[in-house]
Parts: sequence; structure tokens; C-alpha cells
Amino acid sequence: MAEQVRWGIIGPGNIARQFAEGLAVSKTGTLVAAGSRTLSRAEEFCAKHGGKAYGSYEEVLNNPEVDAVYIATPHHTHMNDTIACAKAGKAILCEKPFTLNALEAERALAAVREAGVFFMEAFMYRCTAQTAKIREWIDSGIIGEVKLVNTSFAFQAGEEWANFRNDPALGGGGLMDVGAYCVSLARLAFGEEPSDAWYVSQPSSKGVDWIGSGMLKFSGNRSAVFQRALVLSAATTRSSWEPRGASSLMILGRTARVTRFDATKVGTPSLRNLILVSPMLRFMPPKPTLSRNTLKPASAHTSPSKTLFNR
Amino acid sequence: MAEQVRWGIIGPGNIARQFAEGLAVSKTGTLVAAGSRTLSRAEEFCAKHGGKAYGSYEEVLNNPEVDAVYIATPHHTHMNDTIACAKAGKAILCEKPFTLNALEAERALAAVREAGVFFMEAFMYRCTAQTAKIREWIDSGIIGEVKLVNTSFAFQAGEEWANFRNDPALGGGGLMDVGAYCVSLARLAFGEEPSDAWYVSQPSSKGVDWIGSGMLKFSGNRSAVFQRALVLSAATTRSSWEPRGASSLMILGRTARVTRFDATKVGTPSLRNLILVSPMLRFMPPKPTLSRNTLKPASAHTSPSKTLFNR
Repeated sequence: MAEQVRWGIIGPGNIARQFAEGLAVSKTGTLVAAGSRTLSRAEEFCAKHGGKAYGSYEEVLNNPEVDAVYIATPHHTHMNDTIACAKAGKAILCEKPFTLNALEAERALAAVREAGVFFMEAFMYRCTAQTAKIREWIDSGIIGEVKLVNTSFAFQAGEEWANFRNDPALGGGGLMDVGAYCVSLARLAFGEEPSDAWYVSQPSSKGVDWIGSGMLKFSGNRSAVFQRALVLSAATTRSSWEPRGASSLMILGRTARVTRFDATKVGTPSLRNLILVSPMLRFMPPKPTLSRNTLKPASAHTSPSKTLFNR
Repeated sequence: MAEQVRWGIIGPGNIARQFAEGLAVSKTGTLVAAGSRTLSRAEEFCAKHGGKAYGSYEEVLNNPEVDAVYIATPHHTHMNDTIACAKAGKAILCEKPFTLNALEAERALAAVREAGVFFMEAFMYRCTAQTAKIREWIDSGIIGEVKLVNTSFAFQAGEEWANFRNDPALGGGGLMDVGAYCVSLARLAFGEEPSDAWYVSQPSSKGVDWIGSGMLKFSGNRSAVFQRALVLSAATTRSSWEPRGASSLMILGRTARVTRFDATKVGTPSLRNLILVSPMLRFMPPKPTLSRNTLKPASAHTSPSKTLFNR
């Protein structure tokens, strides 16, 4: 077995916790450091998950034992965090959405290219067996030319006003948080960038987009729609948000379609077993598969250039 | 039992056949006449379903035994057919889409109002028990304020070039044919008109919209998306078009949602049983419930003014 990748985490929140739990069972990675702007938060995190606790992000980047950094900070700091990691020569796994806009993404990836480090936007779903199978089916033509994509995704950030997802200044809002999955999946299915986009969204009292719909136009007048929500009601339990409806997926080709789907249940491909039911767009705890000596994407379905453009 | 309504049909195609089959088992209506521009077609139709065959529409309208006319002609003649029926003093059930545009609809309904006859656009789904239940749930607030509506509907008109749905000159295309259900259902769910609409569609080689997506914006930035198709592949059997995916419905309120749904299976309303699975948007053979003496809508969820506007 290749030597394990030694991970540092910056921004030890809920997603970082899930990542650390994934690392604990991974054979390819181990946690060596975690940094927070508040030392006590990092200490609390490392007490549970291991690694050395730091009261700043810089100290994690300066630790020579750290091979790769998982950036789990709020969206609005991703550009600067990525640039800092690249300058420190660390491999980078950055939470989605990568940055707040394309200009920030281009600036950060320029630093990545200059440093020659590994970079991946943490759209973990692109590394799963089911995504590989979907791309295989699309590429092989078994479902025919992709015509329509329909996705939805919801997350119960509710009226938790301290959650950065509810703060416009921190890059909050439903499109950045869960809508990003829908847009990413449409780009994956069509294998190109949309030429037009429309978005209708209902703002929260704090000004982030909470519930909304979007439509994307691809070449040849092919199209995708998506709906997303950060909240319906703080009083509503997650039971009303079970996968059917809360997160859904339909990729409709000329001759068949893929509907919420679990690759573990797939037998011989046929029109019949393309249609299976399983949560698709839920958060998948990452399983780091990078070896320390061969830092490369776990899947061909993600790359820095695919973060920027499908070309 | 009230005396049966005596129906005349103009345009004896496939939908008219389904209507006549409904009439055959109805206790409130009976078929007395059918007219086609081709007498032999009307004769063939009446040989199967009963009634007197005519080689013109006018003769049906001039038959004093006809109380009500079911207009099952291609879309582009609906305005003139409605005006002719109104002038003849007949009650009118006109296939959807009522006309090709709002101006035509206003002209035809002006004739209806002047004649004082009954009129209904044949969105049969608005008369079903499940639609009544959905409106009841929305009106009672049990699902909370409606935030998002997501529908899809497909029909396999395929590459049947003789089908008027594939002819732009006859009001063909997917939005007019099956997309009309999606738009109608969104208007029903929100109880108002959209303030903005967007549509992306892939044209057939004959110039009608075959496969596409739409988005509608309602008050308070609430929104609906829909997708529709007239065809994916003439070689594809309907088995790949079973209800899940081909026609679907989600009405998402602040606290719960309605997802494809069968009112016959509904027990005590609760968040749990709002989520049931059944074909929703399929064509429902009409069950005429008008008595000859009390010609009125079978449901409060349709009216001439709701054909024009939700106000």
C-alpha cells in the first residue's frame, strides 16, 4: 500500500467533521493537523479526530508534515485560502462552491498552476461509482443523446442565523450551497457549459436566496431545470425531506433516461435497470484515494479545468 | 336521475374516441351526433360509438337534438369552432389548448358570453377527485404556502408527420399539446398568473417544439419549472415512459409537499400521506357530469374566466 496522504484541515465545521470521520476509516489518508481562527475550536476538533490543533490557518500550511489541505472554510474565503495553500506547496481539496465567481476562481487556479500543486473542488459526488456509471452510460450512447436534465436539492439550514449559509457577506444562499450540485450535475451530463441561465429565487429576511428555480440552456436548445431550497420551515422535520423530492435527478436521453440511481444495484445495463431509486445528490463523505506519491484525481470527472469550464 | 345531456362531437380523432368510450359508461350523457370534414370518418366513428354521422361540423351544430358539443378538432380551429358552437346555442367542451393565443381566446369567449352558453376548456384533470383534494390541501394551508411547483409531461407523437401535433400551421408542438398541462397545473397551484415566463425548446425538423424546459415566476418570487416532450424516439416503447419521470408532479409548500398522488388512496390528511405515488398528469377520459337541465362545471376549479386568467 502506498504511503498515506497526511491531511491538514482548515475550518473545522460540520463538513470537516464528516471528512475527518471518512479519513478515520480510509486506508489512503490520515489527519495530522486542523486549524481554526479560534484555537479552542481546533483543539476540540483534534481531541475527537486526532492531529495537531492550531489557532490559525497559516500554521497548518507551515507544517511540513501536511501533504494536502482540505479547505472547509466559508465560501467567501476560498480564493485566498486556495492561493495560500498553493504558495505553501500543498495539495488542495477545496469545498464547493470553489469561489464566489469565475474571476475569483481564475485567480485562485492561476496560483495553483504556478505552484504546480494538485487541486480538486470537493464535488465528492463526481468521484463515486454511480457518477462514473452515469458518465459511462452517457458516453456509450446507451441512453441516447442527452436532451433534458432535472435535479433538485434541499438542505435544512433553516432559520439558523449564525450559519454562514444565511449570511450574504459570507457567500451564503441556496444557489451557492446546494444549487451548485444541480448546476454541476447538469454540466457533467451535457459535458459542456450552458450558454444561457435563468434563476428565480425567494430571498430570506437576511437577503440570501432561500428557495428557487433555475433553467440552463445548452447547445442545440437542450436544457436543464433545477430547484433548490435552504429551508422550508425550521419546524419541519427532515422526515418530510426524504430523498424523493428533496433531492432528485433525471437525465433524459433520446431513447432512455437515468432517474435517481444507485450504482451498487446495477446489473447488466439495459433500459430497464437504468431506472433505479436511490438518493443521488446527498452529501457523500469523501473517501480520499490519493496516495502521497501519486497525488491525482480519484476520477477523470473532475479537474481544475472542469471547475472553471467544461473544455 | 336528471335527463342525459345529448352530445355532438366534431373532429372524431383519437381523443374523441376516448371521450365517446367515456360517454358509453356515463349516466349523465349520451352521444347523438359526430361530424367530420370527411363523411366516411364520421360514419366509421358512429358505427363504433353510436350517434348520427355528418360530413361537416355545421350539420352537428344545426342538429336541434344536440345539447352540448365536444370540440376535438386541431388547435388552430378552436376559436372559430367555439364561436360557431356559441352562435348555435350549444354548450361547449373544447379540447385544450383552447386557442393558439390569448387574443383568440378572448374573441371566442366573447362569443360564448354573448350567447350565454356553458363553456369549459377540456382540462379534464381539473375535474378529478385528486385535483379537488390538492386544491383543498393548498387552500387549507396544510402544506403551507406554495413555494415551488415541478411538473413534467411527455407524449409519444413521435415522427408521425401526419399528426397535427407535428405541424406548426395547425398549432402543433409540445408546449401547446402536453406543456399546456404543466402550465395549467402551476397556475392552479399558485392560484394566479405568472408574471414572467422562460422557455427553451428543441425544434423538430418540421419546426414544432419537441422537447423542452420552461420556468414560470409567480408573486413573491415563487416559481415553477416544467419539462415536456412530444417525442424521444419513435423506436422507444412506452415502457421507458412509465409515469415516474414521463409525467410527474411536485407541489412544494413551506411545511410539506404533494408528490404524484392518487386521491383514491388518501386517508386522514397528514404530512405523511401527502406523499403518494400515482400517475397524475395522464390524460383522464372525461366523465361528463353535466345534466341537461343544469349545465355547469363539474368542478369549481375550471371556468371560462380561469381559462383566460386566474382572476
